[in-house]
Amino acid sequence: MKFVTFSTHELPEPHLGLVRDDEVLDLDLAARALSLAIPDQMLGLIDQYEQHQPALQAVLAKVGTRRFTQVRTYSDIGAAHALSEVQLAAPIPRPRKNVFCLAVNYREHAQETAHVRGHSGQAPEIPVFFTKAPTTINAPYGEIVIDPAVSTEIDWEVELGVVLGKSGKNIREEDALSYVFGYTVLNDITARDLQARHKQFFKGKSLDGSCPIGPWIITADEIPNPHDLALRLRVNGETKQDSRTNLMIFSINKAISILSQGMTLEAGDIIATGTPSGVGFSRTPPEFLKPGDVVEAEVENVGLIRNRVVSID
Amino acid sequence: MKFVTFSTHELPEPHLGLVRDDEVLDLDLAARALSLAIPDQMLGLIDQYEQHQPALQAVLAKVGTRRFTQVRTYSDIGAAHALSEVQLAAPIPRPRKNVFCLAVNYREHAQETAHVRGHSGQAPEIPVFFTKAPTTINAPYGEIVIDPAVSTEIDWEVELGVVLGKSGKNIREEDALSYVFGYTVLNDITARDLQARHKQFFKGKSLDGSCPIGPWIITADEIPNPHDLALRLRVNGETKQDSRTNLMIFSINKAISILSQGMTLEAGDIIATGTPSGVGFSRTPPEFLKPGDVVEAEVENVGLIRNRVVSID
Repeated sequence: MKFVTFSTHELPEPHLGLVRDDEVLDLDLAARALSLAIPDQMLGLIDQYEQHQPALQAVLAKVGTRRFTQVRTYSDIGAAHALSEVQLAAPIPRPRKNVFCLAVNYREHAQETAHVRGHSGQAPEIPVFFTKAPTTINAPYGEIVIDPAVSTEIDWEVELGVVLGKSGKNIREEDALSYVFGYTVLNDITARDLQARHKQFFKGKSLDGSCPIGPWIITADEIPNPHDLALRLRVNGETKQDSRTNLMIFSINKAISILSQGMTLEAGDIIATGTPSGVGFSRTPPEFLKPGDVVEAEVENVGLIRNRVVSID
Repeated sequence: MKFVTFSTHELPEPHLGLVRDDEVLDLDLAARALSLAIPDQMLGLIDQYEQHQPALQAVLAKVGTRRFTQVRTYSDIGAAHALSEVQLAAPIPRPRKNVFCLAVNYREHAQETAHVRGHSGQAPEIPVFFTKAPTTINAPYGEIVIDPAVSTEIDWEVELGVVLGKSGKNIREEDALSYVFGYTVLNDITARDLQARHKQFFKGKSLDGSCPIGPWIITADEIPNPHDLALRLRVNGETKQDSRTNLMIFSINKAISILSQGMTLEAGDIIATGTPSGVGFSRTPPEFLKPGDVVEAEVENVGLIRNRVVSID
């Protein structure tokens, strides 16, 4: 299933929806019409996903194979909307902690980065983690606002995002994928000048709006092999990154396992699994985002996010 | 004022209190007795501190100079407790994002660290920031649980903690202290082996319980000069760190200003301002915490936290 956080003119507060083809079902309203309850927020759903399965299944059974986009409303269910007519927020508009991120998790990206930074270019033997503040979260079609007074080197990084569905600590590698609730697309927008200047990555990775994510979370059961997906990024239609998740240095299960050593991971946590080669700053000459650019990041079978770059007023 | 988050046998859910000498006033109960309302959680108080001033002042006026620790209850106000008889939680038991931390913000600590890590030892010209996950938060007198399977190099770092009282972005250095709600004591417990192995600091800084904090937040008006405070750390009574906040490389206002460039800081955010020299791993021979050790971290006029180290079961 594909879960979104969306709003409409009538209901401007972002709330939980289920995407079916080109329509969005308002789960709160749909459940109420059946005298059931489904949380109206994504984190509420993830926290108690098993518990809400009967209500979800009842809603799906009632809707059946019907598509009601034309009439806008299921008279016996609640509200449905054309996907193209709602506003999508980030699936988790406000995570409960910083986003966990893997640095240099694709070999060719390790090499291109090393080339610019003057490092050895060897792939790390141990995963490298940093974080992005919750204030970085941006909508899947939101604007990336750049402020030249803060950074003049705003770069892109398409990544497969992993959303956890349950809490755990010291998770074994072979169990780790059972902790995954679903997947999403994430663009780890990075201020390269700040990243270098501040030494630790955090500051350059945490400008407001620097984590566009979505457009939805697709549940793990629909992605049988997250290690065999194409990921691509285009700027103004031109392909900049084009790789596959099978080229990750540390698999998702290995990264979750190591990250959870001595540290409790929690339902709703987001892990960005690293970007492949093709980022801007390692190109000759270096390329950075500028106002007017449109960045599309996509992961096969997961989704596509599209963000326009604008300058601060 | 000194605000705590505390629990009692009768009210085991951690809630907001006000410390007056050796007693704790339950602000929620006290306000209710006057038909007023004060949030029962620290973040709620911080979010709307100005708005809650009249209720706070009314409670204080009613209590006056009385001390009712002996009788336990103000018959006309609500519940009071002896400070020694309540359980103190971290003042903010669950921050809404990772704790912001300054690395190498004292010159002598920069030198001792460089000595071990083989760096130059020059003080950074730009502040270095990393984060600790919300799951690191530990109570002011809580146990630090070490798991030798995860790390065998658990080290200490006494720091002045800053709690923000309002949101802001691109904050000017000269305005920055007006964003401070109050101060607290923080021990930035660090797994040195993980810190080095994972390159970026996050993983080694984010083991569960590795951020004891408290015992309270003392409001900024009571600390007229946060840049002139002694900070000390003792292990089993032996002084290991003994310095002053005037030796910070980047002042609190400068750090807030730079951190906020392009990134919105929010009420309730916690900033750890860096540790002076005297940490364990740079000693000859290196020293690390072991089960049974008692670590006391204190900041002059702010408070003292005391944590016992225990081994995982």
